[in-house]
Amino acid sequence: MATFIDVHSGFVGVTAEQLKEAHEADLAIEAEEGVHFERAWLDPDTGKVFCLATGPSKEAVMRVHERAGHPTVEVYEVPIEV
Amino acid sequence: MATFIDVHSGFVGVTAEQLKEAHEADLAIEAEEGVHFERAWLDPDTGKVFCLATGPSKEAVMRVHERAGHPTVEVYEVPIEV
Repeated sequence: MATFIDVHSGFVGVTAEQLKEAHEADLAIEAEEGVHFERAWLDPDTGKVFCLATGPSKEAVMRVHERAGHPTVEVYEVPIEV
Repeated sequence: MATFIDVHSGFVGVTAEQLKEAHEADLAIEAEEGVHFERAWLDPDTGKVFCLATGPSKEAVMRVHERAGHPTVEVYEVPIEV
């Protein structure tokens, strides 16, 4: 199991409720890919979202986001953490 | 107090020990700016580092990183979190 941070762009003006809905869409299907999305942070001014996840691969993380309706190709495996 | 995620580039091949040293350089001075760096994640393949911090302003976060020797201008205030 590895740890990943992924980045979404274009979420300008998105609300807390909308972020929650997007996150719940991930949570609803993530187990099918062996992924778990732990936290997500949104900057509604720039539209950036950062998600912290664990899972078997970058591709599995991407598949969950894509199937949940908010694909991104910007996924980083982060094996080193402090 | 606000929450921030900042992004560094160019940390290709950096080790866990080096990340720890960089993080400790932040911790040593962060109180002077009212900032606290909670966690940092490194992808040594792409050289990206993501830091999660709290503090009074984006500029305060930037000042700590600059004074600690690893400046970045890519700092996002993330008021919305799930």
